[in-house]
Amino acid sequence: MKRIFDIKKPGVAAMEKARQRVNELAKPIGSLGLLEDYAVKLSGIFGKTNFPPMKKAIAVFAADNGVWDEGYTPVPQSVTALQAVNMTKGVTGVGVLAACVKADVFVYDMGIRGFKGMKGIEDRRVGDGTRNIAKEAAMELSQAMQAITHGIDAAEALADKGYRLLGCGEMGICNTATSSAVLCALTGASPEDVVGRGAGLTDEQLEQKRAVVRRALDIHKPDPDNTLEVLRTLGGFDIAAMAGFFIGCAYRQIPAVIDGFISAVAALAASRFNPVVTDYLFASHQSAEPGFQTAMQALNMEAPLKLGLRLGEGSGCPLMMHVLDSSAAMLQNMATFAEAKIDSSKLVDIGR
Amino acid sequence: MKRIFDIKKPGVAAMEKARQRVNELAKPIGSLGLLEDYAVKLSGIFGKTNFPPMKKAIAVFAADNGVWDEGYTPVPQSVTALQAVNMTKGVTGVGVLAACVKADVFVYDMGIRGFKGMKGIEDRRVGDGTRNIAKEAAMELSQAMQAITHGIDAAEALADKGYRLLGCGEMGICNTATSSAVLCALTGASPEDVVGRGAGLTDEQLEQKRAVVRRALDIHKPDPDNTLEVLRTLGGFDIAAMAGFFIGCAYRQIPAVIDGFISAVAALAASRFNPVVTDYLFASHQSAEPGFQTAMQALNMEAPLKLGLRLGEGSGCPLMMHVLDSSAAMLQNMATFAEAKIDSSKLVDIGR
Repeated sequence: MKRIFDIKKPGVAAMEKARQRVNELAKPIGSLGLLEDYAVKLSGIFGKTNFPPMKKAIAVFAADNGVWDEGYTPVPQSVTALQAVNMTKGVTGVGVLAACVKADVFVYDMGIRGFKGMKGIEDRRVGDGTRNIAKEAAMELSQAMQAITHGIDAAEALADKGYRLLGCGEMGICNTATSSAVLCALTGASPEDVVGRGAGLTDEQLEQKRAVVRRALDIHKPDPDNTLEVLRTLGGFDIAAMAGFFIGCAYRQIPAVIDGFISAVAALAASRFNPVVTDYLFASHQSAEPGFQTAMQALNMEAPLKLGLRLGEGSGCPLMMHVLDSSAAMLQNMATFAEAKIDSSKLVDIGR
Repeated sequence: MKRIFDIKKPGVAAMEKARQRVNELAKPIGSLGLLEDYAVKLSGIFGKTNFPPMKKAIAVFAADNGVWDEGYTPVPQSVTALQAVNMTKGVTGVGVLAACVKADVFVYDMGIRGFKGMKGIEDRRVGDGTRNIAKEAAMELSQAMQAITHGIDAAEALADKGYRLLGCGEMGICNTATSSAVLCALTGASPEDVVGRGAGLTDEQLEQKRAVVRRALDIHKPDPDNTLEVLRTLGGFDIAAMAGFFIGCAYRQIPAVIDGFISAVAALAASRFNPVVTDYLFASHQSAEPGFQTAMQALNMEAPLKLGLRLGEGSGCPLMMHVLDSSAAMLQNMATFAEAKIDSSKLVDIGR
């Protein structure tokens, strides 16, 4: 856990060098928009502008949530295990989209209820699912710390394997409810504003889900400044692990892509542990879940891809990874004005 | 030109089949958002759901504009030729980003002022640049028709070479002014609302540019329902060729990606010739040029990538091509509920 407080700031010199080169490229200044900002941010993270092609992976943390017992969702809890297994075959959303950017997918069992384990799913169980947050605290303090630590370790293990662009996702029926509760606790937002339909609840089920989140908040009333306590009382093992994963990426100075709503809530939790984490984060798509924008605002970030995705699994990460590859290619492969033999003095005084 | 009126509608049966499969995939219905809609649209265009991987190309139409003589821009006109040459080397924005999706870039000289031609740039000159729209009609009717025809031919030639996903872009100093004029004429929008800073004008230069566009509109007053006359009086050879290119893609039943502002105006012109063209079009990024949204609204489209790009050259197309590849992969490689062994009856009644 002490790694949380041992995260370096990105390299300012590399960022300045990157910004200068981006401004010298044969194009009006600023005309490649966020691709320019991403190139600068990546250079700061890697400490140099000529960083090599980024080997990619997506970590998916699967866990069950005791709040499923409240019965507001018609989705069977067994879907968590089934989809975790399907992920190892590459046939779920994240697997198919990850293949499009040659990203490898790693699946972690953080506590799938009743799951006995299988090859291809890493056993990081910290319990047989969480407890029902509408009645009691989701987990023990030791479990929360363990889940976060596992997330950090997962990022470190992928860093050791040579991955240099990471994303994370989750699988766990009812984890939009736990995420909503965590988000409300961290930001003071109300369940009315952030609780969404998740996998697709009816109006009535949505109302039940809101009531469940409200009850959980009323029972636990965690101190919003005590992130660990928020995760312990309201979180899922998946959210805690993802928060740890983002911390681990920052600790190892590796860029990390946020997926959708749950991922954004985990990123917010990570940034509450240590705000420097956000220097390593990239938002990807604007989740259709209503709480997503609340999380982004709290992170002071904006997601550039507006595709209406709300699947989770980390499925939005690969699309952003392509954007980041493109940004790196711009920085490293485009010609400067000088190289392109264009008199930049005619151009650089415009375009701001 | 008669190909304009000979465009087939996309295949309804293939679209229905695609939608059915998309709904059967192991995910909540609708949870992959626009990726689902794109998969359906692509299936309709290709007339089948199991279409092969899409070989990609971007056509860049370069031309000079007589309105440059008005002197509101500090950018030398010679930059059109220089950047066209740089494009053949793959070192400009579009070349570098296209390489990230393995898209080939083809450059066409539609009328670069004083350009003598070179290997790698296809000679499709219809004049030595247009005339100054603030004083006289940009071109003769025969030139407008020739430019459109060249655009259609370019799409057909790429179709013959086996390309199955096309985009187009442009290079031409002052072509945001001509595009703005065309857009105002086609939609009735005012220069105040649509004229932007292009490559990056100062406040004063922007005001001059607005006045120039206003004067051009006042002089020519083309009938908004006569698209050919709008292009003839206010257009550039590049815009006319791009309009033709979109028509050619639709004629050959190939999906075509819109880049930024100028590309969107050309797409709008194409759709005015024949509204079926839009069934073959995909918007990509939200250009930072203010007129872009006006063009999108007129097309009844929305661009999903919000990256602040305003370079042109077709540079936004490759980013969207990756999204479309991902959409096709989702359709073709994800498992259905049945294949994933999940009881869909527990899931399909939610998620709408």
